[in-house]
Amino acid sequence: MNAMHAPLTEVLLETKREKGLTWAQIGERIGTSPIWVASVAYGNNSAPPDKARAIAEVLELDEETTRALSIYPTKNWEQTIPTDPLIYRFYEIMGVYGEAAKDVIQEEFGDGIMSGIDFEMDVHRQQDPKGDRVVITLNGKFLPYRAW
Amino acid sequence: MNAMHAPLTEVLLETKREKGLTWAQIGERIGTSPIWVASVAYGNNSAPPDKARAIAEVLELDEETTRALSIYPTKNWEQTIPTDPLIYRFYEIMGVYGEAAKDVIQEEFGDGIMSGIDFEMDVHRQQDPKGDRVVITLNGKFLPYRAW
Amino acid sequence: MNAMHAPLTEVLLETKREKGLTWAQIGERIGTSPIWVASVAYGNNSAPPDKARAIAEVLELDEETTRALSIYPTKNWEQTIPTDPLIYRFYEIMGVYGEAAKDVIQEEFGDGIMSGIDFEMDVHRQQDPKGDRVVITLNGKFLPYRAW
Amino acid sequence: MNAMHAPLTEVLLETKREKGLTWAQIGERIGTSPIWVASVAYGNNSAPPDKARAIAEVLELDEETTRALSIYPTKNWEQTIPTDPLIYRFYEIMGVYGEAAKDVIQEEFGDGIMSGIDFEMDVHRQQDPKGDRVVITLNGKFLPYRAW
Amino acid sequence: MNAMHAPLTEVLLETKREKGLTWAQIGERIGTSPIWVASVAYGNNSAPPDKARAIAEVLELDEETTRALSIYPTKNWEQTIPTDPLIYRFYEIMGVYGEAAKDVIQEEFGDGIMSGIDFEMDVHRQQDPKGDRVVITLNGKFLPYRAW
Amino acid sequence: MNAMHAPLTEVLLETKREKGLTWAQIGERIGTSPIWVASVAYGNNSAPPDKARAIAEVLELDEETTRALSIYPTKNWEQTIPTDPLIYRFYEIMGVYGEAAKDVIQEEFGDGIMSGIDFEMDVHRQQDPKGDRVVITLNGKFLPYRAW
Amino acid sequence: MNAMHAPLTEVLLETKREKGLTWAQIGERIGTSPIWVASVAYGNNSAPPDKARAIAEVLELDEETTRALSIYPTKNWEQTIPTDPLIYRFYEIMGVYGEAAKDVIQEEFGDGIMSGIDFEMDVHRQQDPKGDRVVITLNGKFLPYRAW
Amino acid sequence: MNAMHAPLTEVLLETKREKGLTWAQIGERIGTSPIWVASVAYGNNSAPPDKARAIAEVLELDEETTRALSIYPTKNWEQTIPTDPLIYRFYEIMGVYGEAAKDVIQEEFGDGIMSGIDFEMDVHRQQDPKGDRVVITLNGKFLPYRAW
Amino acid sequence: MNAMHAPLTEVLLETKREKGLTWAQIGERIGTSPIWVASVAYGNNSAPPDKARAIAEVLELDEETTRALSIYPTKNWEQTIPTDPLIYRFYEIMGVYGEAAKDVIQEEFGDGIMSGIDFEMDVHRQQDPKGDRVVITLNGKFLPYRAW
Amino acid sequence: MNAMHAPLTEVLLETKREKGLTWAQIGERIGTSPIWVASVAYGNNSAPPDKARAIAEVLELDEETTRALSIYPTKNWEQTIPTDPLIYRFYEIMGVYGEAAKDVIQEEFGDGIMSGIDFEMDVHRQQDPKGDRVVITLNGKFLPYRAW
Repeated sequence: MNAMHAPLTEVLLETKREKGLTWAQIGERIGTSPIWVASVAYGNNSAPPDKARAIAEVLELDEETTRALSIYPTKNWEQTIPTDPLIYRFYEIMGVYGEAAKDVIQEEFGDGIMSGIDFEMDVHRQQDPKGDRVVITLNGKFLPYRAW
Repeated sequence: MNAMHAPLTEVLLETKREKGLTWAQIGERIGTSPIWVASVAYGNNSAPPDKARAIAEVLELDEETTRALSIYPTKNWEQTIPTDPLIYRFYEIMGVYGEAAKDVIQEEFGDGIMSGIDFEMDVHRQQDPKGDRVVITLNGKFLPYRAW
Repeated sequence: MNAMHAPLTEVLLETKREKGLTWAQIGERIGTSPIWVASVAYGNNSAPPDKARAIAEVLELDEETTRALSIYPTKNWEQTIPTDPLIYRFYEIMGVYGEAAKDVIQEEFGDGIMSGIDFEMDVHRQQDPKGDRVVITLNGKFLPYRAW
Repeated sequence: MNAMHAPLTEVLLETKREKGLTWAQIGERIGTSPIWVASVAYGNNSAPPDKARAIAEVLELDEETTRALSIYPTKNWEQTIPTDPLIYRFYEIMGVYGEAAKDVIQEEFGDGIMSGIDFEMDVHRQQDPKGDRVVITLNGKFLPYRAW
Repeated sequence: MNAMHAPLTEVLLETKREKGLTWAQIGERIGTSPIWVASVAYGNNSAPPDKARAIAEVLELDEETTRALSIYPTKNWEQTIPTDPLIYRFYEIMGVYGEAAKDVIQEEFGDGIMSGIDFEMDVHRQQDPKGDRVVITLNGKFLPYRAW
Repeated sequence: MNAMHAPLTEVLLETKREKGLTWAQIGERIGTSPIWVASVAYGNNSAPPDKARAIAEVLELDEETTRALSIYPTKNWEQTIPTDPLIYRFYEIMGVYGEAAKDVIQEEFGDGIMSGIDFEMDVHRQQDPKGDRVVITLNGKFLPYRAW
Repeated sequence: MNAMHAPLTEVLLETKREKGLTWAQIGERIGTSPIWVASVAYGNNSAPPDKARAIAEVLELDEETTRALSIYPTKNWEQTIPTDPLIYRFYEIMGVYGEAAKDVIQEEFGDGIMSGIDFEMDVHRQQDPKGDRVVITLNGKFLPYRAW
Repeated sequence: MNAMHAPLTEVLLETKREKGLTWAQIGERIGTSPIWVASVAYGNNSAPPDKARAIAEVLELDEETTRALSIYPTKNWEQTIPTDPLIYRFYEIMGVYGEAAKDVIQEEFGDGIMSGIDFEMDVHRQQDPKGDRVVITLNGKFLPYRAW
Repeated sequence: MNAMHAPLTEVLLETKREKGLTWAQIGERIGTSPIWVASVAYGNNSAPPDKARAIAEVLELDEETTRALSIYPTKNWEQTIPTDPLIYRFYEIMGVYGEAAKDVIQEEFGDGIMSGIDFEMDVHRQQDPKGDRVVITLNGKFLPYRAW
Repeated sequence: MNAMHAPLTEVLLETKREKGLTWAQIGERIGTSPIWVASVAYGNNSAPPDKARAIAEVLELDEETTRALSIYPTKNWEQTIPTDPLIYRFYEIMGVYGEAAKDVIQEEFGDGIMSGIDFEMDVHRQQDPKGDRVVITLNGKFLPYRAW
């Protein structure tokens, strides 16, 4: 949670819990991904005014809270290694496969990076008789390095 | 790079460079993902004997190097925040979207985690007139917590 | 203690102290291990609804506190080396014997890990004329790595 | 691996690999736990002279290497959070269950600790149709605090 | 100061200051070392019930505070290098002489450690015409390592 | 070990081992404490020329090694928390009892510190039917703070 | 210096020193900024093949060194606070003015960032009778955040 | 934000938001750069009395707040690597180009540094059909090292 | 500021500001250095009773505050690298010149240290047409190492 | 020692030791402070060509070593808290008196800093019947902050 947005985040999580909504349901109603809308609630993204109004309608927010959704956040997180096992696994995956992914991306695209700004991310469930699977998709624009 | 496997990794990268192969080409020939085969070369996964032999055929490795591909590694990586911009963006993405992803996964699956062991990961290119996009898919078995 | 669950933890510890119960007694009444029930109280595990109700009966908790036992926690702990001597000894044991245990496990099971999710842990006393002994059992499902 | 004993450790691991022995087999022949004998090889314990001779017989070590097994080591390990997934799970388990275990032990034994010196540790396999399980037993003398 | 016991510590220090007592005087009246009784006040040791009652008599504590002296603490301290010059000198001494002390102890006693649990520590003044000297005695049971 | 003096330290430890001497025996022959002479060997103290000559006689050192014993060292040690269990116990003792010792010293001597420079330290064995005990004495000049 | 490119960097710096060239002169001959060409030499950027050939002509490099200039680097640097006073001042400037710059940029451009990939940077001297001044220009494409 | 000036900063940011002013507008009215005036508001610079009065007129501040703008701050910031993506890019730029900039500056000016005290910094927008660009200018006096 | 003395420090700084006094003026009236008296106010030194009374007279303090000036502080400070540019320069000076100073001192005095306890420190202004200069004097007793 | 200049530093220290010179003697012959000339030898300052030639004459250095004295160094030092007791005392002094010095300097000079670049530092011995004293003088140009 972005510590600087904690009071706003708490209002939003409480309201959501009272209404019994999931991020998936909210995302569907406002026409966005559930991860994006959750990232706004946790104070790690700003909502464009039309999306802020849509969120406000679903959660019945007052005017001030609605405007606060559009403030540009100073994104922040703890820089220690995460402890929550679900989140730690992302860290472990990047430790084990980060270099491999870099090679495979740059062999395909040339020297550059996958943007984390012009970016989107989604989650879905894959049915499997041996136990269902979590599938996460990361999708970012390729940005090449340039000489000058 | 797994420091403890550095000499083996160097042999493999050198051989691959001399043969002018990409991880995508090697993966295709041995029937695996390019990321998985690169992770073996970087010393972060062991290859089952049949996959080790397949890699050995493609790269024309000697017997000892082939056997070394099947040793179970002690996976290791630097725990500081990564500096390479491509790899740092993964870290930034998990900082910005980690909590959101946790919520969305657990709303769908219940309390538990996405396995990083019973797991696979792939990369492909998405054509886009405004600039092509990198698409990464993470796919892991859901493991529920259990009382005892 | 999971800082994010501290108020709930304090209520539970206070109630338990007033009733003069041990974790062993609570675990016995609700049919679980004392360690598991203590881990719920410290905010590091969620209780399935039936176990939450059983805990609530033993501790005579109100409705809201009972529901709170089933929220999926973001597990967190301080990542510095622990100072409490009892807990530090676990850390020392893993420093001294961690690699040895990895070798012995993987020689028996192949490349993979012991799950910390599909997992249980118990403590008992072993009588000994030279001084009684603490015996701790860790029991987790083996998860093999897989190529893809 | 204890960095200060690395050359000795490498000789022992190489010899063991050439002879195709597991720690379980070596432990059985010399009458000790496989974890204890592996911890000697990794330079984290000294062997009493009779055990050193027994190890030397099994591995056919020379006189100097045999004597080196009995030197009292300065035990050392990296204090960062471990990266190898198998070893990290021990760290995660202690983060999630450390406080719970402390409470349960001290409710049973009084204020004090489980010794990590007068201590032993073993691993065995538990057959399970849903997937075999790793069972680790930690066994240490209880040491009470005392006023003076 | 053990942060988790800070309110209790403050009550004890305030009461002691009001009564104009030193730790030496309190220790003498209850039959313990001044360091041990100060360590209880700072929340780093529990008092057996008889010692708790003796402290309560000297400081005229109420019933609840008295009982609190016997709770088993989770001992904790800041793990950064201490800044207070008096305490830093202990750290410097252990940096300069730690290895030397280890050698001298193990040459005398064999492989093992000095217990910090079955332990006591005292301070006294040594008169010296060139400036009086502080003499600190550390006294702990030797615990040998054992094979198993 | 002072990394900057490692080659000298290794020569001294090797020579001592070949001659089968303990620090206690060397200290006795040259008229110093065993801890002080060990601290010189580990590169954390310089020997005055007469003591350097005495050490050289006992260990039969050449001229250059003898002169090197008198160079003023830049004392250095790893600032992480020590891992060796014997040395860690000193760290734990200072965490548990540091503040208590500070109070007891300053109640006796006034505001100031125990010098770690005008200082000596010794170890001896205390016979005890329940297990012999290690007794360490720290002895340093008291230095008062002064206004100016 | 990128540690992984150190041997290449040393060759380039040595050759440049022997030829008595500055980065400004090399940049001018190959038609790029001196900072960009220095960043290639330090192993923090790859040169497109035409720029690599141009650098090779100026420095009279062999074929293998020339090809090495075009390998995509894993950019890396020490993550501690820099000690060199010139480089530390950049760090201090970002500490003092980072938030102010963020506000001023986002008030002008909206929520988003200045790219460090589609980026260039230059240095020039500004004559001043009170002492000449260093002027550094940072120029990066603005990348807006986007909902999805 | 300078934590020690947080209450003052909050008053200034709130007042600015209520008046609907940007730092660019405030800077223009008082005759300074927007970055400098923002750095005063964030508690990282003191305003000379005339500039403090000018800020006070624009924002209609009371007498006490106005005087507080002229107190010399103890400048402080978190020393961890910044998480906000806009601010992190500055850090990344200095990691990638810091050494290159040092070389280019010292080749032009001799051994010395760019002052961060006798310093100014500005931001402007550069129109570009492929996407507008952020241009930041750093301007500091060159200070040479001197022998003595 | 010593966090444990923060309330006392704030009272003293406020009183000093209201009276419009500098540390130089206070030091002059009570017959001490301005730095020493400021270090008492910041909670990093205790005042002997006569100096405490003198400070109390100048600042018109009540009885309790006066007594508090004589309590022996646990000196503490943040151990991160300082961010305030004035204080950072001290740190930079010690990084650049620390070893040089050690050599020069020990060549003059022998193996030992400059005491930071039997110590004083002063500041004065040196007029200079090219810009006035800050002159700081550190003055501490030399303490030699001794064998034992 | 600046790790990047270690080989040069070793040559200089060895030559100096062979000639039996102190930094004070070298400084006197070349007309500089002993601290400055030692800082050049440790690789933390460059010598202007005339001073480099003077040092070369005193130490009888070859041409290449002489030129190397004038290369502009990337000054670097370990950023951990120093362990050598003499150097640590500087760190302790700045922890105890840093804020006090900042106040006293800024009350005299206004908001700004003491330069660590336009700077000199010297050491001398002060005779004292109670034990001689080390006197260190730091002398740097005052640099005021400026609005823009």
